Amino acid sequence: MKSNMKTIRSIPQMQKLARAMTAQNMTIALVPTMGFLHDGHLSLIRRARKLADVVVTSVFVNPIQFGPKDDFKAYPRNEKKDIKAIASAGGDIVFVPRAELVYPVDFQTFVTVEKITATLEGEFRPTHFIGVTTVVAKLFNVVRPDLAVFGMKDYQQVMVIQQMISDLNYPIKLIVAPTVREKDGLAMSSRNSYFTPRQRPKAICLYAALKQARAMVLRDGVDKPAVLKRKMTQVILSICPTAQIDYIAFTDFDSLQPVKRITRNTICSLAVRVHGVRLIDNMKLS
Amino acid sequence: MKSNMKTIRSIPQMQKLARAMTAQNMTIALVPTMGFLHDGHLSLIRRARKLADVVVTSVFVNPIQFGPKDDFKAYPRNEKKDIKAIASAGGDIVFVPRAELVYPVDFQTFVTVEKITATLEGEFRPTHFIGVTTVVAKLFNVVRPDLAVFGMKDYQQVMVIQQMISDLNYPIKLIVAPTVREKDGLAMSSRNSYFTPRQRPKAICLYAALKQARAMVLRDGVDKPAVLKRKMTQVILSICPTAQIDYIAFTDFDSLQPVKRITRNTICSLAVRVHGVRLIDNMKLS
Repeated sequence: MKSNMKTIRSIPQMQKLARAMTAQNMTIALVPTMGFLHDGHLSLIRRARKLADVVVTSVFVNPIQFGPKDDFKAYPRNEKKDIKAIASAGGDIVFVPRAELVYPVDFQTFVTVEKITATLEGEFRPTHFIGVTTVVAKLFNVVRPDLAVFGMKDYQQVMVIQQMISDLNYPIKLIVAPTVREKDGLAMSSRNSYFTPRQRPKAICLYAALKQARAMVLRDGVDKPAVLKRKMTQVILSICPTAQIDYIAFTDFDSLQPVKRITRNTICSLAVRVHGVRLIDNMKLS
Repeated sequence: MKSNMKTIRSIPQMQKLARAMTAQNMTIALVPTMGFLHDGHLSLIRRARKLADVVVTSVFVNPIQFGPKDDFKAYPRNEKKDIKAIASAGGDIVFVPRAELVYPVDFQTFVTVEKITATLEGEFRPTHFIGVTTVVAKLFNVVRPDLAVFGMKDYQQVMVIQQMISDLNYPIKLIVAPTVREKDGLAMSSRNSYFTPRQRPKAICLYAALKQARAMVLRDGVDKPAVLKRKMTQVILSICPTAQIDYIAFTDFDSLQPVKRITRNTICSLAVRVHGVRLIDNMKLS
């Protein structure tokens, strides 16, 4: 099977192509990724495929969204495999810019979303979201998509990008696709590749805790975040005694504000280090 | 004479129109203004007229680029007169968004250009450029221009916008038009309207000082910034003894870095308060 997919490495070339496609009144969907694609990413591409004339998938491990202690250097990469996978999922264009052209020596412009980046991931990774919003603003300007597809696993990221789109008036519709999970419930993530086969089963502790919380809400009518949090902590540590919990948070699904009582609109998010690998996950409690 | 110029107040309407024009392969020029237009602004519109199919002039007094002690409330406004003037200069569309829709209650996203905003205007108006880059990014996203025209009077602003365009990969060409001056040399500015007829002649002190500096460089071969600065200060105070000089700076035209010796690529910029009105001006010393 031959693919007509284009791989573009030049920013001006991508800009020209985007301009030409818009001038032909074609709609463009952008799927921004950091590569090392899994089925979660591919579900985003398939979703984009249904919604736009052209699907552009960017593959770029964005250095500025990693903190100094984060895993930028170790982050897994496999460009050849990624390009094949994107083609098979129906991608039209893969945009793979080079880091030194994305961030030239004199780079000094940043996009900052303030309030909603102060909690959860933003609290534990203080420069993370500035890196995310800056690179996504750049990708938006280069690719000029009509819609952009992000995954629900990075729930706070979705909220932050939506805030940026609204505040900066990007004429872009944000599409959020559900988290894709492994058979045992682990949310797919490129970082799952860090686990040894012995460690890997422990990684389900996040999903197990979320399921437990949801069951307690739906079955037993528990509505106190503190009660759920205590039980979730027990579940996590019973599966992985060495796990380090960064946070377990109960927030309003639309505003990301912490809630005092669980409602049908509450989402539970958590971040846990399992054998040194930082995992995040979330679930609506209804 | 009847004008076909459109006045648009809705952000989504402007976005739709921009999309439709791009889909027809028309080129768009943006002239961002804060209104109360003078011949300097009109020269930008005429320049834009020659370069693009459609000229969009925005009129918006941007609250967030004014500091707490600045003249946001006092800033002069005359929308009716502006709209007529824009039509007569060849504008196609006037975009006049309402402040509460530009900055809704929960607004929290800002575009920051770092290094080159630390000096000159940025030193004396620390939040000014964040306000400028944020609103210009928004206008870029709404209007999607192929080119944007700015005036040379706001030289550092031009440099900052160019840095933002490059860093954030806006596919927009920045056009810089020369400063338009009154007969006596005063750079045109909406703020000139603050002067009483008795105060107004003093406002030429900036231009007089710049001309003096250029003459000393070209005629006498002076190349020491300190010598020029001393003489310029004398010129300013001899014309307006109560003037307050914020800065007189000699920088490289392309990098905005301070120079130790004047070269053919040096630009002199200054900011002076004349009877409480803060004026800026600049001149290349070659």
